[in-house]
Amino acid sequence: MSSASRAATDLATRIAGRCDELARISSMPDGIRRVYLSSEHARANDLAARWMTDAGLRVRQDAAGNLRGRTAGDDTRPVLLLGSHLDTVVDAGRYDGIVGVLMGIAIVEMLGDRVHDLPVTIEVIAFSDEEGTRFGKALMGSSAVAGVWDDAWWELVDEDGVTLRDAFTAFGLDPARVHEAAVDPATLVGYLEAHIEQGPYLERADQALGVVTSIAAARRFTVDVVGEARHAGGTPYEMRHDALLGAAEAALAVERICIAERHVGTVGTMHVEPGAVNVVPGHARFSVDLRGEFDDGRDRVWDEITSAFDAIAGRRGLRVSVSEVHRAPAVFCAPRLTDAVRSGIATTGEGQPMELFSRAGHDAMSLGLVTDVAMLFLRNPGGISHHPDEFVSTDDVALGLDALLAAVLDVAAGQGAST
Amino acid sequence: MSSASRAATDLATRIAGRCDELARISSMPDGIRRVYLSSEHARANDLAARWMTDAGLRVRQDAAGNLRGRTAGDDTRPVLLLGSHLDTVVDAGRYDGIVGVLMGIAIVEMLGDRVHDLPVTIEVIAFSDEEGTRFGKALMGSSAVAGVWDDAWWELVDEDGVTLRDAFTAFGLDPARVHEAAVDPATLVGYLEAHIEQGPYLERADQALGVVTSIAAARRFTVDVVGEARHAGGTPYEMRHDALLGAAEAALAVERICIAERHVGTVGTMHVEPGAVNVVPGHARFSVDLRGEFDDGRDRVWDEITSAFDAIAGRRGLRVSVSEVHRAPAVFCAPRLTDAVRSGIATTGEGQPMELFSRAGHDAMSLGLVTDVAMLFLRNPGGISHHPDEFVSTDDVALGLDALLAAVLDVAAGQGAST
Repeated sequence: MSSASRAATDLATRIAGRCDELARISSMPDGIRRVYLSSEHARANDLAARWMTDAGLRVRQDAAGNLRGRTAGDDTRPVLLLGSHLDTVVDAGRYDGIVGVLMGIAIVEMLGDRVHDLPVTIEVIAFSDEEGTRFGKALMGSSAVAGVWDDAWWELVDEDGVTLRDAFTAFGLDPARVHEAAVDPATLVGYLEAHIEQGPYLERADQALGVVTSIAAARRFTVDVVGEARHAGGTPYEMRHDALLGAAEAALAVERICIAERHVGTVGTMHVEPGAVNVVPGHARFSVDLRGEFDDGRDRVWDEITSAFDAIAGRRGLRVSVSEVHRAPAVFCAPRLTDAVRSGIATTGEGQPMELFSRAGHDAMSLGLVTDVAMLFLRNPGGISHHPDEFVSTDDVALGLDALLAAVLDVAAGQGAST
Repeated sequence: MSSASRAATDLATRIAGRCDELARISSMPDGIRRVYLSSEHARANDLAARWMTDAGLRVRQDAAGNLRGRTAGDDTRPVLLLGSHLDTVVDAGRYDGIVGVLMGIAIVEMLGDRVHDLPVTIEVIAFSDEEGTRFGKALMGSSAVAGVWDDAWWELVDEDGVTLRDAFTAFGLDPARVHEAAVDPATLVGYLEAHIEQGPYLERADQALGVVTSIAAARRFTVDVVGEARHAGGTPYEMRHDALLGAAEAALAVERICIAERHVGTVGTMHVEPGAVNVVPGHARFSVDLRGEFDDGRDRVWDEITSAFDAIAGRRGLRVSVSEVHRAPAVFCAPRLTDAVRSGIATTGEGQPMELFSRAGHDAMSLGLVTDVAMLFLRNPGGISHHPDEFVSTDDVALGLDALLAAVLDVAAGQGAST
């Protein structure tokens, strides 16, 4: 059993308190919901800005609502980014994303005066939108930083019909200036992100920390099943074209095929119309979230799933249409940074660290489009995430801080050697 | 091919026009939705009151919002009720219920001056709530007339959180007086209702009209499936307790068992929480509408369905709970009235009429608790009902008027003979 440094343990305890403090910034009375461009987003940024300032960082909110804090000093030094996100799903836990941001701030405090001697500038980023809870599109904050903002997003609407464009303006941001949030890739060393695992594999292996080798190749779809709304009493089964039963078979097909193909597919939403107790459903709409380690394997599985959808539709006299709402290629972590994380974990006495493929998406996916990325995973008891019971222990956060600090120093040293 | 009388044909044409006129009274811009105690309910009652008055009926709106028109004359004569309902489902057709009300009014016009010589008073009732669209509880209008109003209903809420009690008051009715809508069963001869079939069986038999022998034994349930909300990426299948997949299997089990047992079961609603694309559903709630010709057979099928639910829940680590929201015993039509309807159909030249079991619920179910009831079904092309494409031909309505008039005269004659 390894144990963390005293400094890391103290900071980890403070991080736990800060997670609790952020958890109180929520639009749900009895749970956590903090979405992009909301008043809760503004309050969370204000609070984190205070913590960044206390850590000696120069803080600004960028043109996409991300909060960014840089170490002071020579601005010609290459920049090493540390970060994660502050937004949440609905009825969320208090660690997903948040703990990575707070660990980034803590790393700067652990470095103390050493930060001025490093051959790199450190920038801690608290991304504004990773979950996509409000507008359905994930990773908008990090997409802005990566310079891959898509102007088609401006017309996305939230559940109240507010466009992203109007939400931007209401938040005090200028849609025309969003591109100013983008980094210049030439100035970057890379991006390191600490995050809870959101899965059970570290716990099963009795490991506090793990190193991520790649991030899932994710695609998301909206599927519409159209049948015929009919009277629930008078319509015999042979005349029914029940959209909900077709959607039910389709959801089960996603599960069956993904288990067989060792992928992960989830039907997370289901809306039925007209949605009356005494009417055969004429329309069902559901989402599919499909993840795999490799793009081509994932795409082959999706083809298999859509073939199953077509067979169901044919058998039941339904029409099925599919639209893709999200596609992220698999991101492979950079060996140089992954080695630094692996060495960092080794310094904590945890031994040979476990290597994981991340089935969850992360801000590192966006950054991976423009610079080298790596991720440090923290043990997540029960693999419970996106749920109020989500947890990470203070001991594991402390070990993570020691590992991440070592990784940062390793990367910085490599940068010093190369310049 | 039989043909209707000239008088019936003229009145059927006018009924078609009146159905169109009522269809314009809707709370949906591009469809029909007319629910209990709404401004549309009031407007529909006003319009139908005018038609009733024009037919020579004395009109009143009763204490439950039902519109009732009586033939003038000796109030000591026993009362024969004719009627159906004016409320609709969401995105409804224009004939379900409505055509029965308008046929009742037309019967009075066909009788003309003969109405005063009948040994019965005729009362046409336009029931205010049959579908249960607004408050989830069906047959409230006819329940008030049958004297089986349940005070527990006052706390039912619509989708805006308005209680039935407040809706009553807002409509200008006094909740304390609802019991005044009840009939005295001792004064009644019976209740006759004409209605579109809401099924394909008459069309398949090439029959315009049919006589109903009994009305389905219906039960309705709300089913809650509780699993665990988890991250859609990080949670392996063996750790999932996906409420939506359990609900999907349950909906398919309802279909499979009902087909095998020759019952009709429908899952018409499905709500999923938290309902996010990247979260394994932790909770699913759906409705089951189950109908059978006999109470005991239906109850046995429901037991089989709940056993299937339990098996699914056990296999997937879910909790399933069921609450019954509606239960109506099968209603058997009275031979005396059914014979009159059968004879009435025979007078139109349609030959030996088809006998049907009604899988749909009707106002006659409530009236059947206090008096004899019978129903005349009209051919419903394609069996399409609860849908904008719902239809009944003017020719069939005309034949139905001739048949219903003959039945009314037959019942009245029998009443005259018995007094």
